[in-house]
Amino acid sequence: MSNPGYLIIGGGGHAAALAEILIKQNKPLLGVVAPDILAGHAIFDTVQHYLQDDDVLAFSVDKVLLVNGIGAMPRQTLREKVYTRFIELGYTFATVIADSALVSDYAVLAKGAQIMNNAVINIGSEIGENTIINTSVSVDHDCKIGAHCHLAPGTTLSGQVKVESNVHIATGSGIINNVTIGCNTIIGVGANVTKSIPKYSIAYGARSIIKGLGE
Amino acid sequence: MSNPGYLIIGGGGHAAALAEILIKQNKPLLGVVAPDILAGHAIFDTVQHYLQDDDVLAFSVDKVLLVNGIGAMPRQTLREKVYTRFIELGYTFATVIADSALVSDYAVLAKGAQIMNNAVINIGSEIGENTIINTSVSVDHDCKIGAHCHLAPGTTLSGQVKVESNVHIATGSGIINNVTIGCNTIIGVGANVTKSIPKYSIAYGARSIIKGLGE
Amino acid sequence: MSNPGYLIIGGGGHAAALAEILIKQNKPLLGVVAPDILAGHAIFDTVQHYLQDDDVLAFSVDKVLLVNGIGAMPRQTLREKVYTRFIELGYTFATVIADSALVSDYAVLAKGAQIMNNAVINIGSEIGENTIINTSVSVDHDCKIGAHCHLAPGTTLSGQVKVESNVHIATGSGIINNVTIGCNTIIGVGANVTKSIPKYSIAYGARSIIKGLGE
Repeated sequence: MSNPGYLIIGGGGHAAALAEILIKQNKPLLGVVAPDILAGHAIFDTVQHYLQDDDVLAFSVDKVLLVNGIGAMPRQTLREKVYTRFIELGYTFATVIADSALVSDYAVLAKGAQIMNNAVINIGSEIGENTIINTSVSVDHDCKIGAHCHLAPGTTLSGQVKVESNVHIATGSGIINNVTIGCNTIIGVGANVTKSIPKYSIAYGARSIIKGLGE
Repeated sequence: MSNPGYLIIGGGGHAAALAEILIKQNKPLLGVVAPDILAGHAIFDTVQHYLQDDDVLAFSVDKVLLVNGIGAMPRQTLREKVYTRFIELGYTFATVIADSALVSDYAVLAKGAQIMNNAVINIGSEIGENTIINTSVSVDHDCKIGAHCHLAPGTTLSGQVKVESNVHIATGSGIINNVTIGCNTIIGVGANVTKSIPKYSIAYGARSIIKGLGE
Repeated sequence: MSNPGYLIIGGGGHAAALAEILIKQNKPLLGVVAPDILAGHAIFDTVQHYLQDDDVLAFSVDKVLLVNGIGAMPRQTLREKVYTRFIELGYTFATVIADSALVSDYAVLAKGAQIMNNAVINIGSEIGENTIINTSVSVDHDCKIGAHCHLAPGTTLSGQVKVESNVHIATGSGIINNVTIGCNTIIGVGANVTKSIPKYSIAYGARSIIKGLGE
């Protein structure tokens, strides 16, 4: 595709973060597609606003790259549904890599993978389609991450971790080397993962204890 | 203020880290104000040393930017007291952003905010006055951090977290999106925060278990 | 040593990550020494392959810098044994600093220290010989790290932490300021360390709870 324009689907914080990454790279933004612009900042003020997903259909599949700006939350499927719908219609989703991210020359990113600010993807790792590697995430050498995953901000994978598809790894979790996280599994906030986790599971760490200090 | 000089208050490790950030940016250092230079390294060797806080008063309020080099520890108020005293006397505290930090063009930093090495402040976030965003901290989109807070090294905030004033978030903690941390609260080392925490509280994770291995 | 060549010992993921760092810096790679190239990627395809450690002896001590590509795992001594053997034979191990790492001008790195991608070493800190500061590790001001240590990916040390020799700090651990970790100690995955830990100990956090979600 020569000189494609970019069309962001979604109007929340993840969409805004993607917009800033793309604008810094001088990518032409054709518009943002969302019923509402939820993020309170000004980045979308000068971008054409489309209200409905069907507005995408006015763009030719060979002139636009879609950007999936819908955030990924555990057990919510909207992000994947939107991705699958437009793939089936022949559209292509952009692979987005923030300038501040570090991606090895020997890593492989699938279509629609999004590597956000300050993230690291080390040598030999593979990131699946429509997967978000969020802010300040560290993926070490030879990890294989499946499709439709979300590695939330500040998570760390040591080397040779395998993450199957549709996995959500929540904020600040750490995963030791050489383990496998089965598909459709949720790793909770700050969970310390020291062994493989079966598919369709949740693994969570100790919840914090809360006490009053007196005013 | 045209061509201001910088005057660092404090002589410990936080002051030294700020000094290195400012020197790399070719900011003119007028001096360091501290009874003792506690940090063992040489960065202050060629900087004028003043012994007492009152030595600040010899500098005109319109020719100097103060830099609060006093570290922030839970329940210690010296850092805030020094800040408030000199604000009331008409001085201005510099906003410091390390070259290695990444701050969104759509983030807002108050006077005296300090963004240390390798920290990230994403789109739509706001950082209050005299607050430290320490080394390798990740603050995601649309967070609102109040005044006089300390986000210690390696902490992660997901999107849309609200942190009120005078909050200490200790090393390596992770906070999920969309929660509020009340004022004067302490989040302990590595605590995993999955819901809002009231003001004047402490939230702490499981302490580590320690066992001997035999020599 | 003028215009030394680099010889990497080890053929796994850590060796590959080091190779990519050195190649980006245009360092001449003389070869990789390993019985097998375990990492599945192509970076070693154009590098001379030597099968035995004794092949190192064909290189003059004043024309080669060795790079210890053997990964560090708890209670495994191969990495240290290889290092010690070749030091005793008069060889020198390269200090490796990734371009994406940030090392203070006032930090001190011993021979053979390896500072991997996106790591930070702040002012006044010292890193011992043959120690790995792995991906996205944050070492704050005035820390002293001994020889033969491994700070695994995503670990955070606040200021003035002392780590003695042969310590393994596993993925995602956080250590508060002003504590000491005794020699030969293991800090487990994601452990939160709030006080000093004796030598020859293990400190580990809560293991995650795993539950099925139903398919």
